[in-house]
Amino acid sequence: MAKVKALKCKECGAEYPVEPIHVCEFCFGPLEIVYDYDEIKKNISREKIEKGPKSLWRYIDLLPVENPTVGLSAGFTPLVKAENLGKLLGLNNLYIKDDSVNHPTLSFKDRVVAVALSKAKEFGFDTAACASTGNLANSVAAHAASAGMKCYVFIPANLETNKIIGSLVFNPVVVAVDGNYDDVNRLSSEIANEFGWAFVNINVRPFYSEGSKTLAFEVAEQLGWKIPNVVVAPLASGSLYTKIWKGFNELREVGLVEGDLPRMLGAQAEGCSPIYQAFKEGRDFIKPVKPNTIAKSIAIGNPADGPYAVKVAKESKGDIQIATDEEIIEGIKLLAKTEGIFTETAGGTTIAVLKKYVEMGMIDKDEVVVAYITGNGYKTMEVLEGKLEKPIHIKPSLAEFKSKVIGG
Amino acid sequence: MAKVKALKCKECGAEYPVEPIHVCEFCFGPLEIVYDYDEIKKNISREKIEKGPKSLWRYIDLLPVENPTVGLSAGFTPLVKAENLGKLLGLNNLYIKDDSVNHPTLSFKDRVVAVALSKAKEFGFDTAACASTGNLANSVAAHAASAGMKCYVFIPANLETNKIIGSLVFNPVVVAVDGNYDDVNRLSSEIANEFGWAFVNINVRPFYSEGSKTLAFEVAEQLGWKIPNVVVAPLASGSLYTKIWKGFNELREVGLVEGDLPRMLGAQAEGCSPIYQAFKEGRDFIKPVKPNTIAKSIAIGNPADGPYAVKVAKESKGDIQIATDEEIIEGIKLLAKTEGIFTETAGGTTIAVLKKYVEMGMIDKDEVVVAYITGNGYKTMEVLEGKLEKPIHIKPSLAEFKSKVIGG
Ligand SMILES: Cc1ncc(COP(=O)(O)O)c(C=O)c1O
Ligand SMILES: Cc1ncc(COP(=O)(O)O)c(C=O)c1O
Ligand SMILES: [Zn+2]
Ligand SMILES: [Zn+2]
Repeated sequence: MAKVKALKCKECGAEYPVEPIHVCEFCFGPLEIVYDYDEIKKNISREKIEKGPKSLWRYIDLLPVENPTVGLSAGFTPLVKAENLGKLLGLNNLYIKDDSVNHPTLSFKDRVVAVALSKAKEFGFDTAACASTGNLANSVAAHAASAGMKCYVFIPANLETNKIIGSLVFNPVVVAVDGNYDDVNRLSSEIANEFGWAFVNINVRPFYSEGSKTLAFEVAEQLGWKIPNVVVAPLASGSLYTKIWKGFNELREVGLVEGDLPRMLGAQAEGCSPIYQAFKEGRDFIKPVKPNTIAKSIAIGNPADGPYAVKVAKESKGDIQIATDEEIIEGIKLLAKTEGIFTETAGGTTIAVLKKYVEMGMIDKDEVVVAYITGNGYKTMEVLEGKLEKPIHIKPSLAEFKSKVIGG
Repeated sequence: MAKVKALKCKECGAEYPVEPIHVCEFCFGPLEIVYDYDEIKKNISREKIEKGPKSLWRYIDLLPVENPTVGLSAGFTPLVKAENLGKLLGLNNLYIKDDSVNHPTLSFKDRVVAVALSKAKEFGFDTAACASTGNLANSVAAHAASAGMKCYVFIPANLETNKIIGSLVFNPVVVAVDGNYDDVNRLSSEIANEFGWAFVNINVRPFYSEGSKTLAFEVAEQLGWKIPNVVVAPLASGSLYTKIWKGFNELREVGLVEGDLPRMLGAQAEGCSPIYQAFKEGRDFIKPVKPNTIAKSIAIGNPADGPYAVKVAKESKGDIQIATDEEIIEGIKLLAKTEGIFTETAGGTTIAVLKKYVEMGMIDKDEVVVAYITGNGYKTMEVLEGKLEKPIHIKPSLAEFKSKVIGG
């Protein structure tokens, strides 16, 4: 276990042994993994990684897991050069990191769950659980099924139908809570304290969140071991965003890449933008909000990693912006019709905000820009109702085809 | 263009130049690509392939394309060792080839479309089209968008909502035809004759269908350059099934693998099983049927490659079986709860039929078995309505959680 040294409080620096704990006993700060980078540096190399499995586990040297047993096919998703969208926006080097085809449940959550449940198995847990805005529940339910673990997922009762069925099909206990995600999360924390379950984003959170670093690792490798100039990513709890930053930092730390770190541009929905507001107002604390947006997957009003996300935005000379529900839908449609990629509301938010940054002149046309598409459009179908052209109905006749479709 | 020699009629053997044509002028038989395997053998090697792109294009030496420009991230999907489902069925070496996460539209159709439209671009077409049971339309619409081609997709009007929206979002012209797939296909053939479009599964079909060979190539590579003993795959037009067979044959032909060819086990829905019926009755011709099944993606009553599929079943010492709609749903649920993979009705059919073969004693417990999961469950959500446990609704209170969920 040489690569992982300890858990450490992000606030007061107190150290803890590597256990399924997540809060500092002294100051209630969140705990984070501490690695021995000197040790890791001795083992890691581009060649070794490139020979590794075609999944996020090719980066095991920088993950807090000894023996991956869950989510063996998660990660290593395509990095797509977005020529059409780039041209439209006036960007010459725009890329889409496309987790809409992540295995098995079509969102970046398959990364964090692969890491969290592999670790939970090492700790000896037999039950997996989570508080979720939808995607995480899908992923925990799927991975618990394949790992042979019992499973409880907690979701707001008003989630999209497809996200609910997308959990139920794996046969977990789905608990639909009257309330928003923050209510669900509060209840889940109480349950985590009483039941000996691996709540991936509560008591296993320090391990879980490390999975998102692989979104940085893979992009760097796919760019030929280079760091992009600009990253655009969505924020809910703020974990993904801060861990992408950590990932790029670690790659430099262990000598796998050189060059400047990226500017971290963040995307929130206007209807739930507590991190944006804190950043804009120069606050280092979050004022919780009541979510009201179609982007349910990123509708977290009281984001656990909000303050750290604000810090990353500042430290990276980045920024955080917002998109309205209308803009989010336009973002989904824009990505689909230019790049043939169908994303959900979170991805629509990212694309809408990317467009905004270009319009604000905050991205140079030759910079290498990576937009993170973190979820799949099939899960949030209902937001497109009435927003698309309709099919043209015809009888199976060539004459009718010509008159109704070709016209004339 | 040394690797591809010509097009050749599968019936009378007449040869044609490599053009966007699909029917023999003499006997109306379908045309197929003829390769120069001696030439290919000189260029191809396991090492070269393993260093290739992480997509189906690593097999370009065995595909009829010179310059891939469309679908650059399609293929190279996970091969999952299905330990839980294997144990349940009593199979020690069961694998799932999982195209439910194919890029970008979550079905194996992204393979055939990548090949068809890359070739269409080489031929100089500016418009892509298809007749589809849903998945193909999604894939053609997505790839045409990224390729900057105009696009018309033809579907039966009664398709699943998600499959219709999953085309519309990419902004093609969607023509919804009153009738079943066979009506759609007939109309599309007439249109293909008059309009100069690349109908991927009509005039470009000889190229299109080659894309499915990569399902064999990848499996062999992922098994460590071995051929499985048994393949289970669904049949609609019969193209996928016959091309998987061709793929394994070619791997031996060019010396990449040794060993016996697999037994090809096929799966159809009881409500649309013309190939099964022909096989069972020992016919070498197909009697068209009127489809009536929830498995709409494989509901083709008059399958173009039906006779060749029957031949492959015989030649490989294989078989074809059917599943009822109820069994298909059970198949979807079984795969989800054992392996954490959520497939659509076509995949449910494959799993249901796999189970049947085991129960019939037609697979030995130590044989290497690969079941092809060709599509994603999010696209056929509606078939699960009323077939799953319901969420448990609670208020956000620990007491209510304990009483309503834990019980007691
Ligand atoms: C699709 C998608 N993107 C992004 C996020 C943001 O994740 P985080 O909570 O790590 O900020 C989520 C969270 O659920 C999500 O589902
Ligand atoms: C998910 C899925 N699986 C299998 C098939 C069968 O394809 P084929 O027509 O090549 O037999 C289809 C056809 O549309 C499909 O959509
Ligand atoms: Zn502390
Ligand atoms: Zn002929």
